[in-house]
Amino acid sequence: MEMNFSKKMQNMKPSAIREIFKSLGMPGAISFAAGNPAPESFPVEALSKLAADIFAGDSTNALQYSVTEGYPPLRELVAARLKERFAIDTDNNMTLITSGGQQAIELCCKVMCNEGDVVICENPSFIGALNAFRSLGAKPVGVELEADGISIEGLEAALKANPNARFLYLIPTFHNPAGITMSLEKRRAVYALAQQYDVLILEDNPYGDLRFAGEELPTLKSMDTDGRVLYCSTFSKILSAGMRVGYACGNEELLQKMVIAKQVEDVHTNIFFQMLCAKYMQEYDLEQHIATIRELYRHKCSLMLEMLDKYMPKEVTYTRPEGGLFLWCTLPDSLPLGELINDLKEQGVFVVPGTTFNCDETVPSSSFRLNYSTPSEEQIERGIKTLCETIRKKL
Amino acid sequence: MEMNFSKKMQNMKPSAIREIFKSLGMPGAISFAAGNPAPESFPVEALSKLAADIFAGDSTNALQYSVTEGYPPLRELVAARLKERFAIDTDNNMTLITSGGQQAIELCCKVMCNEGDVVICENPSFIGALNAFRSLGAKPVGVELEADGISIEGLEAALKANPNARFLYLIPTFHNPAGITMSLEKRRAVYALAQQYDVLILEDNPYGDLRFAGEELPTLKSMDTDGRVLYCSTFSKILSAGMRVGYACGNEELLQKMVIAKQVEDVHTNIFFQMLCAKYMQEYDLEQHIATIRELYRHKCSLMLEMLDKYMPKEVTYTRPEGGLFLWCTLPDSLPLGELINDLKEQGVFVVPGTTFNCDETVPSSSFRLNYSTPSEEQIERGIKTLCETIRKKL
Repeated sequence: MEMNFSKKMQNMKPSAIREIFKSLGMPGAISFAAGNPAPESFPVEALSKLAADIFAGDSTNALQYSVTEGYPPLRELVAARLKERFAIDTDNNMTLITSGGQQAIELCCKVMCNEGDVVICENPSFIGALNAFRSLGAKPVGVELEADGISIEGLEAALKANPNARFLYLIPTFHNPAGITMSLEKRRAVYALAQQYDVLILEDNPYGDLRFAGEELPTLKSMDTDGRVLYCSTFSKILSAGMRVGYACGNEELLQKMVIAKQVEDVHTNIFFQMLCAKYMQEYDLEQHIATIRELYRHKCSLMLEMLDKYMPKEVTYTRPEGGLFLWCTLPDSLPLGELINDLKEQGVFVVPGTTFNCDETVPSSSFRLNYSTPSEEQIERGIKTLCETIRKKL
Repeated sequence: MEMNFSKKMQNMKPSAIREIFKSLGMPGAISFAAGNPAPESFPVEALSKLAADIFAGDSTNALQYSVTEGYPPLRELVAARLKERFAIDTDNNMTLITSGGQQAIELCCKVMCNEGDVVICENPSFIGALNAFRSLGAKPVGVELEADGISIEGLEAALKANPNARFLYLIPTFHNPAGITMSLEKRRAVYALAQQYDVLILEDNPYGDLRFAGEELPTLKSMDTDGRVLYCSTFSKILSAGMRVGYACGNEELLQKMVIAKQVEDVHTNIFFQMLCAKYMQEYDLEQHIATIRELYRHKCSLMLEMLDKYMPKEVTYTRPEGGLFLWCTLPDSLPLGELINDLKEQGVFVVPGTTFNCDETVPSSSFRLNYSTPSEEQIERGIKTLCETIRKKL
């Protein structure tokens, strides 16, 4: 039969990043395209032991249907950690376990937006969020990202121009893809504008634990006095990405609505791995484990920056991240991005073009994203050399 | 801040079944309300051994991000089983792993329906599906369910009256909540009508493996000659419900669109448990395991029917299921359902009122659903006695 899809899904295509993955099979390929945590960051031995304990001691609960809100001990442990580590007032906010941070983003949009409504985002922004909004018929509207975070003038103009904006989607800390962190001053200004225009803020903070340089900054949620910030994050970057365990914390009325929406998406998140996360937090030192991941990424990021400083032509600029997984390179206007991406691909080096992350995908970009968490040291050295030489030849 | 939710979510409430669960804490409570598989049906020892093998041999793949379509070996194993066991032409259909059967239902609606579009359902129908449709702004329209399945005249009338019906949602085998199985003749008639009115069929078959009486009937999908049937099912009732692993099989164009929609909901289903399902199918005898579950439910269902035959006043009718998890009781009009439910609740016996499963929830019901997979034999004996005595007193 001829398929006639919903308007919201009709024009949606698989993400460009997925398409890149299909080329990764070639021998010797080096991918700076993924957003995967380093495999050496998974605490395999501990998880294996705890899994055996769960099978031995609590298998019925671990394999049976469970409640949509999440495994109660895990909700409590996450809330306690959000309070201690990120100064979030979890006494007056509810915590929900989601199937990755991705699900929290999608549920927020489902609960808040009618088809045609607007979500204001940093431009560029996380492709998974942009596509979640599009898949529900909402429209991402981008605001320019500056070195210290979203443009405040741009944000106010967007709020004025879009009275049907239902929330701001922001990644204030170690932005994906741009690697930028929003300044304290801008955090305060963003919150004040959200109050003034009475919109919700969705603060996406999957990388907040991965600071390896500079000073900690308060989360937007820690500044929230009127239940206006929905905070979401994940265990993907600190324990395991493949288990799909994330969480959201916010206004109880909003979270209860998200529970109803989650129930009809997947009933609940894999309960065995929710129990595994709780046991890990109870029996092991999560903060110590995170400290080792920070060291690992500090080292990989330094190596990538060292190689870029040494080999990259000065016409190309790049960010110097203080944490997270990504850095962002910008080419001079004279150098066409698409051609570079193709040349690199032929040499087995993969990066993600900036257009992928644009709120309006028809607008060209002269930037691309580099990931340093997944490749090995040897791959970073070899791949960045190839990248720089390829650019040099084109200048 | 004051919350102003999307139109589609505004009036959605937590399911009545969830609310019942909150009362289950009382000592001695007997629940016929759940749809949980029997905990003794989980192959704990085998899963525990296989989980240890995965941690020992393939931990990086089991804990890292994976592809949205699902773990390739599991997709192949599921497809091979669908072909062999249910005569589904998996060579010309794509198989996708989902986070429970629930996600396949929700994705189908997201991909097919604009807000305001109609989904034609049996009435009553599965509350999880009805709420999934509502959460996307689609409207479930019910067609009367007869002893041998959906009313064919009713279905044709609904198709005529609703030109914006985008698909039929059907549970042809061991219907939830009604315990009914659609006859072969009606299966053929339904498929012919779907062709005539050019609509898709979503065939939900979570209980198809659980036949313990009567003759096997072909799935609608096995009759599908033009890619019109999307088939979905789950491992929830045969391995573990808490792991949230289900699957969909259908037209590749449709499934590819569902992949895009799934990617922005949860990226992929918990990969560790996908690997666990695949390993179970490779190293153990799934069909033998299912045979033991069938025996267990045959026994529990027989016991419940025996108790009903012995104690239930003849004014009350009930279905005699040939498989699945539920039977469906109907009261005489003189006996008000709400009052009975409350009286039972006070005695610690919980059943789900039929109104919960109505496409139009404002229409009253004189039926209720009984589950026999979760309660123990002792609970079935004691609970059904209480149920029958309570009804007898009210007649």
